[in-house]
Amino acid sequence: MMRKQRLFTPGPTSVPPEVLLAMAAPMTHHRQAAFEEVFVRVSEKLKSVFQTSSPVVILSGSGTAAMEAAVVNLLSAGDKAISVNGGKFGERWGLIGKAHGVEMNVIDIEWGTAVAPARIEEGLKHNPDTKAVFTTLNETSTTGLTDVKAIAEITANTDAVLVVDAVSAVCADELRMDDWGIDVVVAGSQKALMLPPGLAFAALGPKARAAMAHSTLPKFYLSFEKALSNLEKKTTPFTPAVSSVIGLDRSLDMILDEGMEPLWARHRKLAEATRAGVVAMGMALFAQSPSNAATAIKLPEGFDGGVLHKKLRDEYKVTCAGGQEHLKGRIERIAHMGYYDQFDMLVVLGAVELALKELGVNVRVGEGVAAAQRYFAGE
Amino acid sequence: MMRKQRLFTPGPTSVPPEVLLAMAAPMTHHRQAAFEEVFVRVSEKLKSVFQTSSPVVILSGSGTAAMEAAVVNLLSAGDKAISVNGGKFGERWGLIGKAHGVEMNVIDIEWGTAVAPARIEEGLKHNPDTKAVFTTLNETSTTGLTDVKAIAEITANTDAVLVVDAVSAVCADELRMDDWGIDVVVAGSQKALMLPPGLAFAALGPKARAAMAHSTLPKFYLSFEKALSNLEKKTTPFTPAVSSVIGLDRSLDMILDEGMEPLWARHRKLAEATRAGVVAMGMALFAQSPSNAATAIKLPEGFDGGVLHKKLRDEYKVTCAGGQEHLKGRIERIAHMGYYDQFDMLVVLGAVELALKELGVNVRVGEGVAAAQRYFAGE
Repeated sequence: MMRKQRLFTPGPTSVPPEVLLAMAAPMTHHRQAAFEEVFVRVSEKLKSVFQTSSPVVILSGSGTAAMEAAVVNLLSAGDKAISVNGGKFGERWGLIGKAHGVEMNVIDIEWGTAVAPARIEEGLKHNPDTKAVFTTLNETSTTGLTDVKAIAEITANTDAVLVVDAVSAVCADELRMDDWGIDVVVAGSQKALMLPPGLAFAALGPKARAAMAHSTLPKFYLSFEKALSNLEKKTTPFTPAVSSVIGLDRSLDMILDEGMEPLWARHRKLAEATRAGVVAMGMALFAQSPSNAATAIKLPEGFDGGVLHKKLRDEYKVTCAGGQEHLKGRIERIAHMGYYDQFDMLVVLGAVELALKELGVNVRVGEGVAAAQRYFAGE
Repeated sequence: MMRKQRLFTPGPTSVPPEVLLAMAAPMTHHRQAAFEEVFVRVSEKLKSVFQTSSPVVILSGSGTAAMEAAVVNLLSAGDKAISVNGGKFGERWGLIGKAHGVEMNVIDIEWGTAVAPARIEEGLKHNPDTKAVFTTLNETSTTGLTDVKAIAEITANTDAVLVVDAVSAVCADELRMDDWGIDVVVAGSQKALMLPPGLAFAALGPKARAAMAHSTLPKFYLSFEKALSNLEKKTTPFTPAVSSVIGLDRSLDMILDEGMEPLWARHRKLAEATRAGVVAMGMALFAQSPSNAATAIKLPEGFDGGVLHKKLRDEYKVTCAGGQEHLKGRIERIAHMGYYDQFDMLVVLGAVELALKELGVNVRVGEGVAAAQRYFAGE
């Protein structure tokens, strides 16, 4: 049976044909007026996406480059910082900080659960000289959502800058940088921004820009100061990923034409329909407070998730993502961030139903897709 | 709610990205060895698709060009021919014949029903000097299938050549030109051959090539003789649609890699699942003996199908096809010919369910997609 390749991974995600076509235009050189116009335009549009009036710098690199940039531009060796290890990407904040000699106070929580904001508050009380709090809006590895708004209310009354990894959450989960009082938001191109991997972003609020002045960690390529001073000159310090910036211009138009609130509402609907489908077919959800960017299915005890993942990918050509680290084989993650619509959810739920059934799991074939349909019909 | 554009029209149909990319290669000139190789290759591959050892000529034009070519290359003014008017395309055989002064004996049947082969037999007995019988494998306007195998058994014992319009049926419905004894098969590129519109095909069996020698109808661009003599020289008499031929090379590879029998089986499954879904949601099928190329939903009495069509197209971005002529507003047609897989059927059934419900039709939302899922699960 011929089957189309379909991608439901939490990055890279599907890229709209309009964006791919824009990126396939003949190459242009970045040090010329035509590209500068694009660069200025996307830099302005990014502010709307991050809901900030602060500058957003564009780095050519993946999301982790922006994470590391946040660490090396805000802190100095020996500084104290708090991070939350509730999944692979929260864990990464701790690893990056430690690699640079930052004294990381890591709050360990069970993967798949969300950190209680009170634990951040306690950490800050215990170490009032904490310089930064690193959090993860959507923990991609578990699809768990963190209440960064509540955390921002805590950090606002301290000297600590709040850095939010929104790599996979931006555009999918509600995020209001200025209103909520977040100091730095980092993101990547290959998630709900509907681009290939290759660009990373950091929105830099006033408290963060002030902290930058005191940071002594060594930096060059990832220097926010270089990026900001070049941004004023309508350019980048180093050769940017030109095609990606041109694609970004197109994808940001699609995003802003849809509008941030409708965009968040769409992701909420896709997520709620997917969760309803997963439960209706007879499976459980993994994340306690799930993000709208992706849905993790908790697999039955003793079931080998790798087999499900491979069957979906190789037989049904529906590529989702398995679990990482100790969650390997225990969950399967369905992304619905970015270029996905309600009918895509029927496709992925349909494939999951069929694959699970064939693997001997007692699922109710048809009930998952029917539940999603009823959700969309408002029944 | 952002929604992707999806095409379920019975021509043009979805074109695979691989084919679009092949067609986007830099333009080449057709009178050179590199293109001749492609042309020879596709001409050979087309024989496998039509299941014939006879030559298949390629015309740059739409399906109707190949239909008219069959008439003007096989007949002379005043010749007698039989055609079946069971839909818009069967009707077209009669109109083309009459335009060229052919004495058309048109068998009128109710649109949506299939002609009884015995009626062709009677027509041939009544007019033993009939030179050609024109039939339609899938009557695209009704999604009705004609039993051309049974008709070929009848024409085999007569002097009449059997011409089959397989424009929308080739690759979707089983068709074995040589085994079944069909003399001419005509087809178009924009259906299950997974290409944009622009190419038409005519497979010419020995009985047809013999008939060509007696044909005196005027012809130039549509001359089979010119096409055949150029085919021997690895070229075409007139500038071919170069990009389409290059795309055809790619789409035929996809088709033959899948294999004709699996290809027919896939279309049968897509059609059976779609029909099961339509019935399960509470609607009726229109065609009495349905083709596997498309499915026509019979709409309730007094319901305006145009409103459904527009809602699907404009709100859900799922473009199907309405009815033609007196079927306008009475049916909605879902194509599943060519580049469609099982999950696409969930999408189109899902959109139809939601649109019908919103229009006040008493459909069981979720039951259509669930029935298709159960069909695919073999339940």
